[in-house]
Amino acid sequence: MTQSPAPLPFTRYAYLGPAGTFTEAALLQMPGVETAEKVPASSVLSALTMVEEGTVDAAMVPIENSVEGGVTATLDAVSVAHQLHIVAEALVPITFVVASRAPTTLSRIRSLTTHTHAWAQVRRWAEVSVPHAEFIPASSTAAGAQALLRDDPAADASICAPLVAEQLGLHVVARGVEDVPGAVTRFVLVSRPGPIPEPTGADKTAIMIPLPEDRAGALMELLEHFSTRGVNLCRIESRPTGDGLGQYFFSIDLEGHIDEARVADALAGVHRISPKIRFLGSYPRADRRPQQITSEVSDAAFSAARTWIEALRRR
Amino acid sequence: MTQSPAPLPFTRYAYLGPAGTFTEAALLQMPGVETAEKVPASSVLSALTMVEEGTVDAAMVPIENSVEGGVTATLDAVSVAHQLHIVAEALVPITFVVASRAPTTLSRIRSLTTHTHAWAQVRRWAEVSVPHAEFIPASSTAAGAQALLRDDPAADASICAPLVAEQLGLHVVARGVEDVPGAVTRFVLVSRPGPIPEPTGADKTAIMIPLPEDRAGALMELLEHFSTRGVNLCRIESRPTGDGLGQYFFSIDLEGHIDEARVADALAGVHRISPKIRFLGSYPRADRRPQQITSEVSDAAFSAARTWIEALRRR
Amino acid sequence: MTQSPAPLPFTRYAYLGPAGTFTEAALLQMPGVETAEKVPASSVLSALTMVEEGTVDAAMVPIENSVEGGVTATLDAVSVAHQLHIVAEALVPITFVVASRAPTTLSRIRSLTTHTHAWAQVRRWAEVSVPHAEFIPASSTAAGAQALLRDDPAADASICAPLVAEQLGLHVVARGVEDVPGAVTRFVLVSRPGPIPEPTGADKTAIMIPLPEDRAGALMELLEHFSTRGVNLCRIESRPTGDGLGQYFFSIDLEGHIDEARVADALAGVHRISPKIRFLGSYPRADRRPQQITSEVSDAAFSAARTWIEALRRR
Amino acid sequence: MTQSPAPLPFTRYAYLGPAGTFTEAALLQMPGVETAEKVPASSVLSALTMVEEGTVDAAMVPIENSVEGGVTATLDAVSVAHQLHIVAEALVPITFVVASRAPTTLSRIRSLTTHTHAWAQVRRWAEVSVPHAEFIPASSTAAGAQALLRDDPAADASICAPLVAEQLGLHVVARGVEDVPGAVTRFVLVSRPGPIPEPTGADKTAIMIPLPEDRAGALMELLEHFSTRGVNLCRIESRPTGDGLGQYFFSIDLEGHIDEARVADALAGVHRISPKIRFLGSYPRADRRPQQITSEVSDAAFSAARTWIEALRRR
Repeated sequence: MTQSPAPLPFTRYAYLGPAGTFTEAALLQMPGVETAEKVPASSVLSALTMVEEGTVDAAMVPIENSVEGGVTATLDAVSVAHQLHIVAEALVPITFVVASRAPTTLSRIRSLTTHTHAWAQVRRWAEVSVPHAEFIPASSTAAGAQALLRDDPAADASICAPLVAEQLGLHVVARGVEDVPGAVTRFVLVSRPGPIPEPTGADKTAIMIPLPEDRAGALMELLEHFSTRGVNLCRIESRPTGDGLGQYFFSIDLEGHIDEARVADALAGVHRISPKIRFLGSYPRADRRPQQITSEVSDAAFSAARTWIEALRRR
Repeated sequence: MTQSPAPLPFTRYAYLGPAGTFTEAALLQMPGVETAEKVPASSVLSALTMVEEGTVDAAMVPIENSVEGGVTATLDAVSVAHQLHIVAEALVPITFVVASRAPTTLSRIRSLTTHTHAWAQVRRWAEVSVPHAEFIPASSTAAGAQALLRDDPAADASICAPLVAEQLGLHVVARGVEDVPGAVTRFVLVSRPGPIPEPTGADKTAIMIPLPEDRAGALMELLEHFSTRGVNLCRIESRPTGDGLGQYFFSIDLEGHIDEARVADALAGVHRISPKIRFLGSYPRADRRPQQITSEVSDAAFSAARTWIEALRRR
Repeated sequence: MTQSPAPLPFTRYAYLGPAGTFTEAALLQMPGVETAEKVPASSVLSALTMVEEGTVDAAMVPIENSVEGGVTATLDAVSVAHQLHIVAEALVPITFVVASRAPTTLSRIRSLTTHTHAWAQVRRWAEVSVPHAEFIPASSTAAGAQALLRDDPAADASICAPLVAEQLGLHVVARGVEDVPGAVTRFVLVSRPGPIPEPTGADKTAIMIPLPEDRAGALMELLEHFSTRGVNLCRIESRPTGDGLGQYFFSIDLEGHIDEARVADALAGVHRISPKIRFLGSYPRADRRPQQITSEVSDAAFSAARTWIEALRRR
Repeated sequence: MTQSPAPLPFTRYAYLGPAGTFTEAALLQMPGVETAEKVPASSVLSALTMVEEGTVDAAMVPIENSVEGGVTATLDAVSVAHQLHIVAEALVPITFVVASRAPTTLSRIRSLTTHTHAWAQVRRWAEVSVPHAEFIPASSTAAGAQALLRDDPAADASICAPLVAEQLGLHVVARGVEDVPGAVTRFVLVSRPGPIPEPTGADKTAIMIPLPEDRAGALMELLEHFSTRGVNLCRIESRPTGDGLGQYFFSIDLEGHIDEARVADALAGVHRISPKIRFLGSYPRADRRPQQITSEVSDAAFSAARTWIEALRRR
């Protein structure tokens, strides 16, 4: 049985702005966020710094993109530079609209502005549908949209999120122009280390594990600590530490919550072989998909095993 | 003993342009490239398409960044969309200069143009050294530098690679302005499937492995195929396939060459459990670091084992 | 689909005698043995020596006992001292009768003779049913039975196999006197190394593997070679080599035949880490229980993997 | 640092008799046994029953033989039938003497009595040194020696342990007549479940683990619980349970004491996958060989890991 995530105990949020980005759309999914203050930040770094310095309680930042892959820099920043914890995640469908200040048609558009990442995701559509349109890079998709409202805008239209077009009152010339439909971007909400969200039965835990050796088998020994406790991995990525040759760490999301015995036992096992392991948070899954665990790794099984050992030792 | 990589059998190359990018710097490292034709491409996609269509023999594209993390979209494109092979890699130190059209000083710079990724890497320097400078996004660092040569340029200076400043004859106002010194970006040279580069004793092999199940232990079973053959992993990354929930593949770089028995035996083992495994190439390591293998996974050990089995079976 | 074992190409057999033992009963199970010569041997050692020296073609010897445990000395002798191969196995139900020369009843029996091992297996029955009977040790159960036919026999009755009572024309006073009903002893037929019996689809392979280290994980690394090829173990036993402290070897029976790809591949893998591995034979299972193998370790999967590697390498 | 085993808290012992056996020699090694009562038992079963019923405090029984292999029936009896615990082990060098009532020479000996197991261990010596001597089986080596003292003894001499020849005042005709010198038999001292002997830094723990499945990998999953805690195995043996086809248990001796964190953690892990695991005792090693453990499985590492988890959870 899974339970609904509890409302978050925060009143001030930052997010990667400007207003209308997919990141703001992610923030709007958080339970109880409606009445909170929402502050756009100019960069992920800036958003994280606002949390760290206490200007806001939490920040929503992008972390993974099912089309472009992991935006792992964010996770590194959360973990290493800022020592923040993840307290929630959000999944936002990535779909783009073509927006203009005044009603127009695609055939009349001679220039389009957006972020280069967004441009990469609509290239094939653009080659077919607006072959003569020039691309003008913007610092974000929302910034591109806002630029349309200036006097003498540089572009005829922008490629942007539906939310920003709506917020700015732009005219939507075309919808769903992304080349790969169905893409989803993952966002995480980070805060200063504090109370861990309660387990819901459908949770994830994020960790970073330095591993001194890269010999065959070192990763295996690490993973055995998860498999012997029946802990599934959602994501694994090896990363160079930047400290020198042959130095790695593993960035891992696993199924389950640190309050569950199997997760705590696995993390304790990993701590013995890599005492610099970093815990980055346990939080409810955005997809609410309940975990399937076998009876041998249930809390009851861990409890029965401990009771057995203690009875033997008491003799 | 490692051997020098052989010259590449190519006469026309594409690279992620424009001229002067780190990608061009990577291409210039390739043995024998001096006399070849080098064609800038406007995007990774475009470069890969030129290879696929035969317009060029090979393309140099960025693949990994020790500061920003994996540019995994490139690898997916190489593998899935284009079915190309990797035939070489290059490592380029990422260092930025501040370049202007005419001699100037930092204190006089009021606006700076560059790619948003580059801007993220010099943010802390900029806050301290040019606090009042406005950031103007460009579609690439090289495009920003070139824009300085236009009539009435939008920015006073650009943040760009040393190569482009040199090529364009720009004035270098400051060097080494990156916030994290020592960063390196990895590039790969891809071509249509053809002869695999000869083993040099210091090689890598890239593969992609779909894994139908995400249960605890499935990754372990995969990795056992490498550890039982003493094959080290250089990089591992789990990726959603995009085909639905719970579907993953693993993107892996491993030490060694498919012509080595231990690598071939491990790949054959993985093929049995994941027949859709994709081989993306065996190629010389850019760092020329020789692999350390134990006698039990030497080609001689594999050969002795095979001889023993055949003698028993012949009875 | 399993196939019946082929008749054995032997005409002279030794077995652990004297006539009438469970070992002779095991020998009588061999296909085609009816017309062969059957020579009782006074000890396992003697039987093995007869094979080695060519006096007989093969010898049937006991190897394992589901009640008393492994008679592992036999296996060591087969392997180490005599370098023989196992070509068949037999399972014989262990059941004892009380036999006397002339008709009598249990209450009149004052002394019983048998081998001490057999006596251990009927102790509880004896305490209840013939509480006053004295135990007189014999060198084998059959020798005890034969002693009843001497003038002035030392015992009133013997505990022996049904076969010997029948062969000697003794009177059966009681049947099924064993304390643990359903016990089975395992026997193996050994011969000089020669043609390996054809695979039947329900086979076993016996090996001995020296392992230099006893550190945690060394056995795991060994077993990974079996698990990655889907090879089940029927039996595993660690044994001291007798050569000194911390030196072990593993005596293993596994499911499958060396002519099957998964078995050959696993053995080749083990050969790399322990080149002194000894192959002791592949032979049909006595219980004819067919092996369950998954498609990923079928001969076809191994063949497809090899074809894939060869096609890649040919480029 | 290892510590000496503490004296045992027992005053009455049984041992596999009669007096003078290797088993009595094993018992005499126990610290503090000099002043205790020592009762010979006619069989292992009888000795174990005496412990179970409280007639004695503990019993010394043979368990393993470096030449003949495991006497695993004893271990099964200790574990399954009698639910006793092992509290000590002893190693006794197996060496035989030829003993006679009156002084004689080998050439005059026409018959020799001993247990068939002992006879098997001197066969080659006997064939060379007393080729014409007849073998007369005895129920034990000590019983054979004692029979020499009867009126009209059946044999001229006996093959027996040095201890019994000395105790009975027999004449030693030859020493060291065993075919394989250096053999050692292992004995264990068993008692009713009670206080576990204190850890000494050089201990063993005995367990029995039922394993429902025999599929490839089930044993691996079991062993991972030991390897992830750095627990070495001293001995492993698979045994059929006798309950039916495909049912196994594993009899395992491992390095370490249940009071050590790594052993307790491994056993707790195994308990989850096989809750019917039987603990058979933690006791000092007879060879006093200290265990080599790495820092990552020290009690301190387990304690640090637990502290880390608790601090995280307290948030």
